[in-house]
Amino acid sequence: MTDDGRRVAGGRSAPAAPLPANGPSFHEMWRDLAPVGRAEESGGYRRFAWTGADADCRAWFRAQAETRGLAHEVDRNGNQWAWLGDPSAGDAVVTGSHLDSVPDGGAFDGPLGVVSSFAALDELRARGARPSRPLAVVNFGDEEGARFGLACVGSRLTAGQLTADAARRLRDADGVSLPQAMERAGYDPEAIGPDPERLARVGAFVELHVEQGRALAATPHPVGVASAIWPHGRWRFDFHGEANHAGTTRLEDRRDPMLTYANTVLAARKKARLAGALATFGKVGVEPNGVNAVASLVRAWLDSRAADEATLAEVVGEIERAAVERGRRDGVEVRVTRESFTPVVEFAHDLRDRLAGLLGGVPVLPTGAGHDAGILSASVPTAMLFVRNPTGVSHSPAETAAEDDCVAGVTALADVLEGLACR
Amino acid sequence: MTDDGRRVAGGRSAPAAPLPANGPSFHEMWRDLAPVGRAEESGGYRRFAWTGADADCRAWFRAQAETRGLAHEVDRNGNQWAWLGDPSAGDAVVTGSHLDSVPDGGAFDGPLGVVSSFAALDELRARGARPSRPLAVVNFGDEEGARFGLACVGSRLTAGQLTADAARRLRDADGVSLPQAMERAGYDPEAIGPDPERLARVGAFVELHVEQGRALAATPHPVGVASAIWPHGRWRFDFHGEANHAGTTRLEDRRDPMLTYANTVLAARKKARLAGALATFGKVGVEPNGVNAVASLVRAWLDSRAADEATLAEVVGEIERAAVERGRRDGVEVRVTRESFTPVVEFAHDLRDRLAGLLGGVPVLPTGAGHDAGILSASVPTAMLFVRNPTGVSHSPAETAAEDDCVAGVTALADVLEGLACR
Repeated sequence: MTDDGRRVAGGRSAPAAPLPANGPSFHEMWRDLAPVGRAEESGGYRRFAWTGADADCRAWFRAQAETRGLAHEVDRNGNQWAWLGDPSAGDAVVTGSHLDSVPDGGAFDGPLGVVSSFAALDELRARGARPSRPLAVVNFGDEEGARFGLACVGSRLTAGQLTADAARRLRDADGVSLPQAMERAGYDPEAIGPDPERLARVGAFVELHVEQGRALAATPHPVGVASAIWPHGRWRFDFHGEANHAGTTRLEDRRDPMLTYANTVLAARKKARLAGALATFGKVGVEPNGVNAVASLVRAWLDSRAADEATLAEVVGEIERAAVERGRRDGVEVRVTRESFTPVVEFAHDLRDRLAGLLGGVPVLPTGAGHDAGILSASVPTAMLFVRNPTGVSHSPAETAAEDDCVAGVTALADVLEGLACR
Repeated sequence: MTDDGRRVAGGRSAPAAPLPANGPSFHEMWRDLAPVGRAEESGGYRRFAWTGADADCRAWFRAQAETRGLAHEVDRNGNQWAWLGDPSAGDAVVTGSHLDSVPDGGAFDGPLGVVSSFAALDELRARGARPSRPLAVVNFGDEEGARFGLACVGSRLTAGQLTADAARRLRDADGVSLPQAMERAGYDPEAIGPDPERLARVGAFVELHVEQGRALAATPHPVGVASAIWPHGRWRFDFHGEANHAGTTRLEDRRDPMLTYANTVLAARKKARLAGALATFGKVGVEPNGVNAVASLVRAWLDSRAADEATLAEVVGEIERAAVERGRRDGVEVRVTRESFTPVVEFAHDLRDRLAGLLGGVPVLPTGAGHDAGILSASVPTAMLFVRNPTGVSHSPAETAAEDDCVAGVTALADVLEGLACR
């Protein structure tokens, strides 16, 4: 039993670890990370899993761990951990997020959580806090799924929500498989798979993240606590028509899948609006994609989310029906494949309430975005902190957060870690 | 003056050239060309200008010329010519087409004209015809514009309808410029430009082409003669919105260009239908093109054609207005750029009527497709023969023509060449 009455996994007594050496300030860390994987033309980030930019992010993480005297390790799925105290002692309080990005993503989604985690450890030291549980900062690999099309690959594998076989079948747009990509980046793809022993050491996981909406912007609070993640999924819509010459084929002789796709985009928006849900077509591929050729195939991905699974199923079903119906008129065959689905995540209520209490009654709010915290919540008590986003913009170079709000986020995370893990 | 009373350019007497040696049969030529640039997965052709597949087509052309004892030459713009008789004698009758393709194009669009041209020369020999004018087969480079986005580059340059400077600014999707591509293929990009002297030697140009519609399919005629090419053009529509997270951004906070694009696709179809015109969006690019990101930019190309220029301008204007109007609702800025425009082409009436007469009153029909013949028609008397297409499908692996109709095309082309160029 620890001082505050919690049982330590494995029955060993909790470590009264020395606080870590102070590392670079929040500003210094932010500045070092800023140029990594940044695209000149757009100003956005292209930090895709197992690329050079990803390797640079990982090197940065390792340096942050080492400069603070934290034990750096990479788990079998390529997630990075920086440990303060003995991991095997169990009941660890872990914080962190991810460093990869969507195509032309913003600077905050992911990195704010990782940078704030290191800064919060420094803040604990400054306060003279004495940890009674192991602490760790984690960088989960391939959270955004920008390269292989599946989000949260690192945490899914670790939590056993993605089998090693399924992961090995993932391929990027160039046909490179995940194992090939890992190998080229110097990692062993043979080892990937569930990691229950590692998860058993985690007593609580707290992920700080920039808010991806404007709920906090309407309040005086720079920080909020997550209540739940909406159920969400990705569906691939294949619209099969017939390639033809755009300059000679009579309109009535065409089987043009672009028309069916266009109608489906507008139907998706309407169905989502009526149901209070979200539905987005943001990725499209066309064959043959020639200016003077009627398309033979339009392949597009629907991202849809709703407050509950029944509403989500209804919205997606209605969009699919609208697509098939219009396809019949256009002579276009529509095939829909569910590529991923994440059920609703209710974060652990006691942990969530404890955090809200520690932070003095901050807002508790849901989100439509998936996170590693959502994946881990099936295995360990998990919570999230959101830092206010003045515009609500995310997954864009325009994503931002005020400096004061970022500082408030570090303070709040330090409060949480101190409350959970320190005497 | 020649035997039949026509004046020979330069005043020299016409050559009574020996007929060429017989070459491989139509079937043999077709078989040799069939595998070049064919994509296994689609069964379609990817013979893009200045690529390896293009080089293979060019080597095939040269071999066809040489095996028949025709003088092979490449002009300053990379077009290939195979001469029977002395080109400098002038008043030549030239036939031919192109060998490049759209992405995943069919086997007939272009190659049918080139193969039929060589076969027609062999047919003349079999008939014992004696040419009184020089004859040539031509392969115009980069007719489809699949790589650099502008159609008929080879004939446009030669006819002075594309300046060398403008051609040098053309770039493919990978940023490779036309001069770089030519250089890598072993051609001299410094020499490109107008070639009036070469055109002055051409007394008539006749291009045989597979029909790209079903007008002949409804008749007993395997071959028809072109009356005109509809005016046509390409317009780039840039829909500028704002990238955002598809899972968190409220619908009312979005500026989603995919919606504006979708509405524009449907508007284009409707406007074209009402005007009896054609309007097609067949090529699209999306940024950032992430499944869980609202797009920041949708860039799409409109191909539009109509029987006359006033109708075409009206249709395109209405599509642009519909786009801008919808964009205002979506918070999306729409910019439209005309990338190319080809005015209506009326083929030389006397040549057209002479061909229809030589062929015994075959149908005379317009087409919506651009051709090198359309470009050349501004400089030399030009005509086209169309070979029946049973399905009307073109720019697709499913493009086809019946064997008997191809044979009828060769016979008709031989009739035309004999009528125009032989004693």
